[in-house]
Amino acid sequence: MKVNNTPYRTIWPASDGWAVEIIDQTKLPHHFETVRLENLTDSIHAIADMLVRGAPLIGATAAWGIALAMHENASDLALQSACEGLYQARPTAVNLRWALDEMRKVLDPLDPSSRREAAYARAMEITDDDVEISSSLGEHGSKLIKNIWEGRRRDSIVNVLTHCNAGWLATVDWGTALAPIYKAHNAGIPVHVWVDETRPRNQGASLTAWELKQHGVPHTLIADNVGGHLMQHGKVDLCITGTDRTTRTGDVCNKIGTYLKALAAHDNNVPFYVALPGTTIDWTLRDGVAEIPIEERDADEVLRIPGMCDDGVVREVLLTAEGVTAANYAFDVTPARLVTGLITERGVCAASESGLSGLYPDLA
Amino acid sequence: MKVNNTPYRTIWPASDGWAVEIIDQTKLPHHFETVRLENLTDSIHAIADMLVRGAPLIGATAAWGIALAMHENASDLALQSACEGLYQARPTAVNLRWALDEMRKVLDPLDPSSRREAAYARAMEITDDDVEISSSLGEHGSKLIKNIWEGRRRDSIVNVLTHCNAGWLATVDWGTALAPIYKAHNAGIPVHVWVDETRPRNQGASLTAWELKQHGVPHTLIADNVGGHLMQHGKVDLCITGTDRTTRTGDVCNKIGTYLKALAAHDNNVPFYVALPGTTIDWTLRDGVAEIPIEERDADEVLRIPGMCDDGVVREVLLTAEGVTAANYAFDVTPARLVTGLITERGVCAASESGLSGLYPDLA
Repeated sequence: MKVNNTPYRTIWPASDGWAVEIIDQTKLPHHFETVRLENLTDSIHAIADMLVRGAPLIGATAAWGIALAMHENASDLALQSACEGLYQARPTAVNLRWALDEMRKVLDPLDPSSRREAAYARAMEITDDDVEISSSLGEHGSKLIKNIWEGRRRDSIVNVLTHCNAGWLATVDWGTALAPIYKAHNAGIPVHVWVDETRPRNQGASLTAWELKQHGVPHTLIADNVGGHLMQHGKVDLCITGTDRTTRTGDVCNKIGTYLKALAAHDNNVPFYVALPGTTIDWTLRDGVAEIPIEERDADEVLRIPGMCDDGVVREVLLTAEGVTAANYAFDVTPARLVTGLITERGVCAASESGLSGLYPDLA
Repeated sequence: MKVNNTPYRTIWPASDGWAVEIIDQTKLPHHFETVRLENLTDSIHAIADMLVRGAPLIGATAAWGIALAMHENASDLALQSACEGLYQARPTAVNLRWALDEMRKVLDPLDPSSRREAAYARAMEITDDDVEISSSLGEHGSKLIKNIWEGRRRDSIVNVLTHCNAGWLATVDWGTALAPIYKAHNAGIPVHVWVDETRPRNQGASLTAWELKQHGVPHTLIADNVGGHLMQHGKVDLCITGTDRTTRTGDVCNKIGTYLKALAAHDNNVPFYVALPGTTIDWTLRDGVAEIPIEERDADEVLRIPGMCDDGVVREVLLTAEGVTAANYAFDVTPARLVTGLITERGVCAASESGLSGLYPDLA
């Protein structure tokens, strides 16, 4: 999508044909900086220190990390060591493991002399495939927005509420929850986005608002507390969020607070959609609330927040008195009964076992 | 309640018998400072610049402001001018107008030579009456906590979730939503409070957490997004919030986000109580969502937040890129159907017209 009117992906081969470039997302929203990755160490740093984040982008970065490692040394030992190093950079990221496995499938059987070229080719494929998935998901989802618009004889703006960042910054391009919005906007449908700031890490305020502004999509930032009031007063036409993990029955585990918005949508007859690539479905799970463990993160994420001071310096400030105890649950589960539908790269389906297995008969 | 192990009210006569002291709430949670009010100007400053906040405390401060004005000059003109100055300090505060009217009822008929003494007496009465209302409300509400505790044979902690600050800092003492908690804690019932930080102004993080910590009540600060997850997992026994305005049918208008917690409580069979002094009931309203206008405040409250930097200086930081648009709805309405009961100074009742008119037959 666009940054300063120039189309970008979140990761791309440098013009010299061997290095890789990324957006340093730790500097957002205050500074837009790109970083050049030249070797395995750079790639591990980019993943471990969260210059890149979002499951699909982490996967793509790992694939390019292997390519850069093969550029330096394509021996069996180097391949093994590169996989281990990248895996340890963020061991809980499912896509990271998946991308490394994909790279090994191609590279293990090859003679070291052929590995460099094959690694670059496979990394590029993984990257392009991710764009294709997001783009396809976006096309399917944009029809929901278009239908609302056409249902009103195209005389008003369609208001979409989203939570957290499931935008192009979390993928290679287009995003998941934001892909339908970008597709609708690009097609000339007047869409406006209510952006939940998404405490405690504020990915809505720092990433989603930044993305939408750069691409020119009208939007308004709100505190996470506001969505219910907006829905009570007819100011939201539909909600679209992402999901980190989806059960085979259609329960979705997403950023903490998603459940509260789904309850408000249900209480006010506002459609609540969740966008996901099929890879995030965990076919082994049936009951999200009971079965999905919820990560507890550092309390400091609640107690402190970074921002830019009047002197242009980014500082972290303490929001409470010294010594206050905080808890930081990172995700919650929204039961399928509150989800109107799931938007996938294969189409839109009901949030149910029959809905998902209808779209993914090969995986169900 | 206690600060540094010393019992405090939010406003009290100074030991010299004529000045008044308050806690400067703008300095919380980072610094605890008391301020001496010696005249009308000091009192107007305290109200207008929000050194004191919360409807009952604003009312009490206005009453003391009149007393201080009479201490300087008790003429008819001085009384008139003091009332006007204090009213303009925060014209939307209903209790402010009420307290000024109460003072005039006593002072208008008197000879200027008798006004000083009468003003101090009436200000003290208004202050003590407010403590009595909160204390009584707290006694009634604490029985709900006690019942839960006894229902479990007293073998576990009772977890209460609250939103925003309806604590003793908003009143003269005890508070409204927090009064039942302080009463239960003081009675030896093991109670733990989940404190919503309450974006955008963070009154939970800066005031509620501070109050509870100073008084020694166990508590944990959470992002506003977290409550639903906690309720899904049985970690909340009841919710208690305050209300700024209550309809005769039991709808409550409280800090933005209250509605989302009420939805989660309803979805998980968690009792959701709202604490209020009878004075906040607006007997002219029947439908809170349709009839109560919701204040929109400065977007900067969403975009910027103050906190303490590592160098000990409190600074405001910008949370987004420059130029992001934000909306800041300050309150929302929770329909009576989601409210388990209302806790008042006269007892606990159903959130309904019959419930309220049963407790307030003289007002209904």
